Amino acid sequence: MSRIGIFDSGVGGLTVQRAILYALPGADTVYLGDTARVPYGTKSAETVTQYSLRNAAFLARHEIDLLVVACNTASAVALPALAAALRVPVLGVVEPGARAAARLSPAGRIGVIGTQGTVASGAYQRAIAAVRPDAEVIARACPLLVPLAEEGWTDPQDEVVRGIVRRYLAPLREAGVDALVLGCTHYPLLRSAIAAELPGVVLVDSAEAIAAEIRARLPDDPRREAAHRFFVTDAPEKFLAVAGRFLGRAVTLAEHVDV
Amino acid sequence: MSRIGIFDSGVGGLTVQRAILYALPGADTVYLGDTARVPYGTKSAETVTQYSLRNAAFLARHEIDLLVVACNTASAVALPALAAALRVPVLGVVEPGARAAARLSPAGRIGVIGTQGTVASGAYQRAIAAVRPDAEVIARACPLLVPLAEEGWTDPQDEVVRGIVRRYLAPLREAGVDALVLGCTHYPLLRSAIAAELPGVVLVDSAEAIAAEIRARLPDDPRREAAHRFFVTDAPEKFLAVAGRFLGRAVTLAEHVDV
Repeated sequence: MSRIGIFDSGVGGLTVQRAILYALPGADTVYLGDTARVPYGTKSAETVTQYSLRNAAFLARHEIDLLVVACNTASAVALPALAAALRVPVLGVVEPGARAAARLSPAGRIGVIGTQGTVASGAYQRAIAAVRPDAEVIARACPLLVPLAEEGWTDPQDEVVRGIVRRYLAPLREAGVDALVLGCTHYPLLRSAIAAELPGVVLVDSAEAIAAEIRARLPDDPRREAAHRFFVTDAPEKFLAVAGRFLGRAVTLAEHVDV
Repeated sequence: MSRIGIFDSGVGGLTVQRAILYALPGADTVYLGDTARVPYGTKSAETVTQYSLRNAAFLARHEIDLLVVACNTASAVALPALAAALRVPVLGVVEPGARAAARLSPAGRIGVIGTQGTVASGAYQRAIAAVRPDAEVIARACPLLVPLAEEGWTDPQDEVVRGIVRRYLAPLREAGVDALVLGCTHYPLLRSAIAAELPGVVLVDSAEAIAAEIRARLPDDPRREAAHRFFVTDAPEKFLAVAGRFLGRAVTLAEHVDV
């Protein structure tokens, strides 16, 4: 049996946990959402790294076998610092997502959407180039998509949703991308609206990509009853109010913690 | 000569500072933007109070005569704790804004828009009722307006801007409000778009209201060359990139600080 530690800047990492639970139903998990300091995507690499190290230190005290950095921004900027600080393996979502995009893109014209921090870091661009050097990568920051998903405005028929998604994706559409990395944990909630703007384009969910890689590394017993704990740095009520929508199953208890 | 301390969750408080500098051109200011932990509007009262106390303690060490809480959310939830902790007077933006709305509303049908934290606190509703008990107050949280303003999407002709603003303001329009409190530091940047949706409605800017109240309390010498210092908790570059747009004058130096 395995215990997986997962942290994110907030609630969005539950979409990553959802994919992990689907791939490894018998694994225990400990989730930490840094809801008091969310979001990371608009903040500097130094600040995100500092917060990530504190989150990781907290999870390391829970005897985890593996640390998953569910937040794309933290994966993009803090992974070397985290790997140096921890004794267990550290996996971020950027490299699995980049590898999946490189594999699935027919012609190697790959779009990446993410937070300002993720896009500015160049992490996806580098990771794709490492496995498919001939690929052309067009990256775009989409700051409004996270608050849009958190507001619950995700209906692809909604003209506000369509207008925002269309504006962000227009340069990618014009560039003729044939695959698009959803490089932020919130974006899978807008998947239908994104797909409607980019018909025929392969949408790559980093959450599914990392889950597949973890499944290949850790043993699992699907008959086992797994235990899941949730911690947050802000008041648990707000997390609990939306957690179910992100995780796809009920979350009834989250514990407050200062890290 | 006076020295005024001002804190906000980030860059938005510069719209409050702008109004203060206009009212008291000779006053020195020390501004702290808690850009590492922004936003406050989506977080719990406990977390916002804890961050506000740390911000205030930092500014108190700069020999200020008055502390201005420029953030509506912090003003709404943390003012009693701040007043108890500081030796200098503490002014928030909620009460001046509420008093101005009560005074300026023709028929006492007052709308309030703000963050989730501000609206949920009921602070504007209570403050308006205290000075105009017969007023009817309709409050609405508008989470997307802050990222919209930070993205620079504020053109009232922009269909995305119009769509979002219209959706949030529809219930206030239907309720027939005759005055609207812009209960968040970012909203003055969307003033034209908001005015277009609510023709004939008095828009109340809490920043102007608090500046008028401070002017009545502190002496000022407009011929004096005032000194202004800016501190931020995240990397200064991002703050400097947008500060001018919020303050209405150039900001060339911001110092990083951990609080």
